[in-house]
Amino acid sequence: MEDAAVIHRLHAAKASSGKSYSEIAAETGLTNVYVAQLLRRQAQLKPDTAPKLRAALPELSEDLVLEMMKPPMRSYHPNLIQEPAVYRLNEAVMHFGESIKEIINEDFGDGIMSAIDFYCSVDKVRGVDGKDRVVITFDGKYLPYTEQKSEQMVSRPQPR
Amino acid sequence: MEDAAVIHRLHAAKASSGKSYSEIAAETGLTNVYVAQLLRRQAQLKPDTAPKLRAALPELSEDLVLEMMKPPMRSYHPNLIQEPAVYRLNEAVMHFGESIKEIINEDFGDGIMSAIDFYCSVDKVRGVDGKDRVVITFDGKYLPYTEQKSEQMVSRPQPR
Amino acid sequence: MEDAAVIHRLHAAKASSGKSYSEIAAETGLTNVYVAQLLRRQAQLKPDTAPKLRAALPELSEDLVLEMMKPPMRSYHPNLIQEPAVYRLNEAVMHFGESIKEIINEDFGDGIMSAIDFYCSVDKVRGVDGKDRVVITFDGKYLPYTEQKSEQMVSRPQPR
Amino acid sequence: MEDAAVIHRLHAAKASSGKSYSEIAAETGLTNVYVAQLLRRQAQLKPDTAPKLRAALPELSEDLVLEMMKPPMRSYHPNLIQEPAVYRLNEAVMHFGESIKEIINEDFGDGIMSAIDFYCSVDKVRGVDGKDRVVITFDGKYLPYTEQKSEQMVSRPQPR
Amino acid sequence: MEDAAVIHRLHAAKASSGKSYSEIAAETGLTNVYVAQLLRRQAQLKPDTAPKLRAALPELSEDLVLEMMKPPMRSYHPNLIQEPAVYRLNEAVMHFGESIKEIINEDFGDGIMSAIDFYCSVDKVRGVDGKDRVVITFDGKYLPYTEQKSEQMVSRPQPR
Amino acid sequence: MEDAAVIHRLHAAKASSGKSYSEIAAETGLTNVYVAQLLRRQAQLKPDTAPKLRAALPELSEDLVLEMMKPPMRSYHPNLIQEPAVYRLNEAVMHFGESIKEIINEDFGDGIMSAIDFYCSVDKVRGVDGKDRVVITFDGKYLPYTEQKSEQMVSRPQPR
Amino acid sequence: MEDAAVIHRLHAAKASSGKSYSEIAAETGLTNVYVAQLLRRQAQLKPDTAPKLRAALPELSEDLVLEMMKPPMRSYHPNLIQEPAVYRLNEAVMHFGESIKEIINEDFGDGIMSAIDFYCSVDKVRGVDGKDRVVITFDGKYLPYTEQKSEQMVSRPQPR
Amino acid sequence: MEDAAVIHRLHAAKASSGKSYSEIAAETGLTNVYVAQLLRRQAQLKPDTAPKLRAALPELSEDLVLEMMKPPMRSYHPNLIQEPAVYRLNEAVMHFGESIKEIINEDFGDGIMSAIDFYCSVDKVRGVDGKDRVVITFDGKYLPYTEQKSEQMVSRPQPR
Amino acid sequence: MEDAAVIHRLHAAKASSGKSYSEIAAETGLTNVYVAQLLRRQAQLKPDTAPKLRAALPELSEDLVLEMMKPPMRSYHPNLIQEPAVYRLNEAVMHFGESIKEIINEDFGDGIMSAIDFYCSVDKVRGVDGKDRVVITFDGKYLPYTEQKSEQMVSRPQPR
Amino acid sequence: MEDAAVIHRLHAAKASSGKSYSEIAAETGLTNVYVAQLLRRQAQLKPDTAPKLRAALPELSEDLVLEMMKPPMRSYHPNLIQEPAVYRLNEAVMHFGESIKEIINEDFGDGIMSAIDFYCSVDKVRGVDGKDRVVITFDGKYLPYTEQKSEQMVSRPQPR
Repeated sequence: MEDAAVIHRLHAAKASSGKSYSEIAAETGLTNVYVAQLLRRQAQLKPDTAPKLRAALPELSEDLVLEMMKPPMRSYHPNLIQEPAVYRLNEAVMHFGESIKEIINEDFGDGIMSAIDFYCSVDKVRGVDGKDRVVITFDGKYLPYTEQKSEQMVSRPQPR
Repeated sequence: MEDAAVIHRLHAAKASSGKSYSEIAAETGLTNVYVAQLLRRQAQLKPDTAPKLRAALPELSEDLVLEMMKPPMRSYHPNLIQEPAVYRLNEAVMHFGESIKEIINEDFGDGIMSAIDFYCSVDKVRGVDGKDRVVITFDGKYLPYTEQKSEQMVSRPQPR
Repeated sequence: MEDAAVIHRLHAAKASSGKSYSEIAAETGLTNVYVAQLLRRQAQLKPDTAPKLRAALPELSEDLVLEMMKPPMRSYHPNLIQEPAVYRLNEAVMHFGESIKEIINEDFGDGIMSAIDFYCSVDKVRGVDGKDRVVITFDGKYLPYTEQKSEQMVSRPQPR
Repeated sequence: MEDAAVIHRLHAAKASSGKSYSEIAAETGLTNVYVAQLLRRQAQLKPDTAPKLRAALPELSEDLVLEMMKPPMRSYHPNLIQEPAVYRLNEAVMHFGESIKEIINEDFGDGIMSAIDFYCSVDKVRGVDGKDRVVITFDGKYLPYTEQKSEQMVSRPQPR
Repeated sequence: MEDAAVIHRLHAAKASSGKSYSEIAAETGLTNVYVAQLLRRQAQLKPDTAPKLRAALPELSEDLVLEMMKPPMRSYHPNLIQEPAVYRLNEAVMHFGESIKEIINEDFGDGIMSAIDFYCSVDKVRGVDGKDRVVITFDGKYLPYTEQKSEQMVSRPQPR
Repeated sequence: MEDAAVIHRLHAAKASSGKSYSEIAAETGLTNVYVAQLLRRQAQLKPDTAPKLRAALPELSEDLVLEMMKPPMRSYHPNLIQEPAVYRLNEAVMHFGESIKEIINEDFGDGIMSAIDFYCSVDKVRGVDGKDRVVITFDGKYLPYTEQKSEQMVSRPQPR
Repeated sequence: MEDAAVIHRLHAAKASSGKSYSEIAAETGLTNVYVAQLLRRQAQLKPDTAPKLRAALPELSEDLVLEMMKPPMRSYHPNLIQEPAVYRLNEAVMHFGESIKEIINEDFGDGIMSAIDFYCSVDKVRGVDGKDRVVITFDGKYLPYTEQKSEQMVSRPQPR
Repeated sequence: MEDAAVIHRLHAAKASSGKSYSEIAAETGLTNVYVAQLLRRQAQLKPDTAPKLRAALPELSEDLVLEMMKPPMRSYHPNLIQEPAVYRLNEAVMHFGESIKEIINEDFGDGIMSAIDFYCSVDKVRGVDGKDRVVITFDGKYLPYTEQKSEQMVSRPQPR
Repeated sequence: MEDAAVIHRLHAAKASSGKSYSEIAAETGLTNVYVAQLLRRQAQLKPDTAPKLRAALPELSEDLVLEMMKPPMRSYHPNLIQEPAVYRLNEAVMHFGESIKEIINEDFGDGIMSAIDFYCSVDKVRGVDGKDRVVITFDGKYLPYTEQKSEQMVSRPQPR
Repeated sequence: MEDAAVIHRLHAAKASSGKSYSEIAAETGLTNVYVAQLLRRQAQLKPDTAPKLRAALPELSEDLVLEMMKPPMRSYHPNLIQEPAVYRLNEAVMHFGESIKEIINEDFGDGIMSAIDFYCSVDKVRGVDGKDRVVITFDGKYLPYTEQKSEQMVSRPQPR
């Protein structure tokens, strides 16, 4: 099955359920961003979660579920940066990037925030002015750079 | 004063204080990311905050404080994306961008998260496995797209 | 429905009405640029405006109106900059950009012109030489950069 | 004289006058954007205006005035697009570009807005919600594409 | 009608006429480059010229003529620069560009050659060595940069 | 000697002569564009022309003349395309490029206009409306593509 | 006929002949690279050569021969540089480019190797180690830059 | 201290030791690639390793060691891809990338090879033909994508 | 046959065999990466290996085997770098590239690792912490740069 | 020593010898391109050749010779492609690239021309029309792609 066709059918199943990503998230115990990634075939559906998703999306067929359990090829449209909502996220990351990096260094050490052991959610909060605010949380495991000690590199070929 | 020279002196003032961005943040009531932005001349120091920052950074001279109160020209190094910690943030934003956009649409409406009325912090939490996790929070005001009604556009020239 | 097909039908409805964007704008109380954006699916049709647009464009079918009420994915063709009329606008923005930024700083403060709470119109005026002039007005809300005070960031995780 | 040195001295003359671009504009009868362009050596100072500018900026020396009367090499920094205030202008132009082009076609004909016979100003208005709004006006002469008739092309070589 | 289909039919009409662009140009009183632009839908056919073009190209149908009278969306293929004949033109423009700009400044003033009020032809001449030479003539109206005087900017909003 | 220093001194020699490129061109029998290229070290000064140029530019020293007789490394600033006068030339070339190529094919054959055996001048003419027009002439030798016949390729290695 | 379809049929004609490019080259008296260019519609088939090519490729139909006699639009796939065999050629050209340019200057003068009056072949030779070597020969006419003398520029408009 | 100056001094210390990266690696128990990264300030020197490195590089001063213990800003020169040795590595990664990704998926699951918990060495082996071969080993921890379960995301804000 | 169709059928043959790339590799004596390259038509199937592959993949038809024996056009999707697993490989290569290059120089001489006489495998090992690790091995012949001695260049044309 | 300074001194030594690259090549038994590469520090001087080069270039000091014997970092200026002589070489490679690749496949097999075991020379020949022609010869060892057999990959880690 072509990815585009799969995604089209997944979105149709969601549309006929009448539920939002956040509602499906609440029903399945996943973050709302992860649900959206699953329905765009950018995340792998795990066996234990499949029944919950089928319960939330009754039109999800068995063949679609099988398709969703394959490891996806992850990508995005090269023009996506044009989208104003996406651009502002990118702007924040690029403008604050060096500061964030230095704070990680100070508060954790020489390492990074994993983007693989990672959670992301979009939430709505009320600001001090009573207005709606979008809160996007990036929560990734801290990964320290390994010091590359030869004795711990079990794969190393024996030099001649 | 050249920006590079200002930033060099600001970082020296921080170094001689022996404090981290998060510690200065705690003393000044600002987010740690915002403190780091101030010290890279990527944010404007506000009059009420200047005394708090001078208290936190005793070597901050008056001329530097005046410099910090100018609206900055915001930018970042074009090679910044090479930095692995920054790349992973960018990766998350670009890969999850379309999902985040659609969830904002569903849960708020046709609009965006402001990157101007915006807060950002880096925090350390303990994950369910007891390991450190980096939490980066983006908190921006929800801005709905205006419907462009002529009568509300006070600036419009009168057509001849 | 595919976006391209929707747009094709929207333009056909406009063509059969025999009206220009400016005429539809006058009938619906919208700016002419906003009308054109609506018909290219780059803006969301609001419920109160739908009847006015259907009155202006009699061939606009119900399914098209429903389609137009979805939040759009905003984008433009990467070659658009080749178009001479668009290039000149871009040239003006890029060449005058730093000056405009500095004037905003002086006359308003450290902030930007919103491109979301924003109006745009194209108007025809007669110059002092009696010749036609194109006037493009960008009118956006002034957004000051927030000072990121921790106590006002309601979303912030509690540090451990 | 190096351009960078000239601009540095021009900005110093402005700083010592204590005037904003808009104030200098009011004194000299120029638009505020044009004043800023003059002081960044992106526009040519005209002989009749030189005395007015010297009156407005007392520290403007004769050699600087002579320098300002040379036709400038126009350019901008390639990273300028990173600046959030400039980006939003660019975003508006690129996203609305096709609509603006089509409205020019409908209301004027097959032509463009000149970026040479052109005025630009930044103004502050109060919106219907009582909040400040930035108004950027682009006002350029309408230039219709010529039909290229051979007899009107006086430069054409005679074919052998 | 799709642009590609229109262009295909226009080129077929030319092919069946057995005439070159230069021959059609001679019959219609247009430059040869302009004729070629018309047949690639990169210029607008004017009402007075339509009969001449139909006379020159008997297979040109009425619907094609109507299509040709619409203002075109101007563009070119991004790979066009690969074409050796086009590359050499571009090379000449880029390498001689700064010199041409300075000569315009010296001989005309601070302004540009319009690319809108513009003529272009390709001609064959015999060089002093008796060999064929390609002569490409660019003939554009000189446009001086306007000095942006506020009183002449009729569109300017009234500052509050 | 550094190229930048050479060019600086060449321009100083021109400035002190008080002559324009076109005036130097008239005195030396060269095109004005070629004179400007010589003074930017983008063309090689030929021995017979050196005395004429020294007559036209009295401050031209012997060492500069020797420098000008070296074959130059040809290049241009990557931001040059931002200059509006240069952009419009580029726009004309890219938009008309395919048409020009096809007319060369029809009127000359499968070949190109040489950019090496090439003349370029900038001239001022009066248009039919009495206004000044910039005429840029590109005049290059027609070079037909060779048919690559083995027997005419004297360099070819003998296959084993 | 679409170019892609023409090329597909040309390659089919070659395949059914069972001959390599080098074999067809030997039969037709052309270089092997030129034969390959002809069959990818990147060179123009000349009338005298058409019978030889038809003799070499019996399945070459008359309509294909007519198509091959049109001046081609020359281009290549933008991803071609990814191909390792092509990359290494490009690497050699870019790394050795400045040296090659300077040797041409020293041994010929201020000029270039034409890529139009040009021959290219791929040959197999045995190296001093007895191993096969690929020899690619570029053989182009030396083209000296013309000194642009006004009197030799027959196309130049008469200045007013 | 400027990074460039630090690296210059680090390389000088290595040069005066007369040791290769592989020899220093053997003395310090690190991989050779890691040693080279340390001396280019692309990895952080750990406290336990500092004495070993000082033993291996006697000219390493205390201030350099302190500098080496800071978390580095990681980057590389944008032209690095031009280097033939680096290009071939990049070529291998890009051409084999999709295959490597699919094998990881099949043999490990939906995840990646960490580039942070990561070892890299360059080794010399003798091939079956008796010739030297370069072996580059990339050894990174397998990181499975987390399923983003809300209850495990301890950082998530409480929806209102 | 179109490449995409061939690859689709090759992947179908693999899917129906139920075997992983590593399993097919074990049966055919090839590396797992090479098997994956073969099935994406990025490597040439050799005659001796064809029977082994047909034994491993019973649905591999004769026509597919013939197709696989043609030298492929090697390429990859320009967006492939977006894939996180591929990006991390690329990151490692680019960040460690200069170090790897210098170690090759020190330990082998002035040369490179061939990407043509080259082996690549993906292996699973257990790290010292007992966790799975991905090991990617690049094993290429060392190629020293030749000193270009004229007498050893058998192809050189005789200078006149 | 800085590379730029080394190259400056190398070119000065050549200038004072009054010899061309081709003359030095004849004296040293190297190709002229290789000599030029040596003097731009893009190739490594071999011990046996050093005395010959010192004989040819008497001003070559001992420290320069030592510098020339280090393996160079190979690169080129990113604007080099602007140089017309270099562009035409690049044009030939890119336009003929696919043909050259296919002829290598037909006449040698699935492999490439090495750019490492490689010779390059620039020669002057007289064409059949008696005019000078530039002949650039690329002569590289044919490298067949290895079939990646596991048993021949001596570096492969043992799977657990």
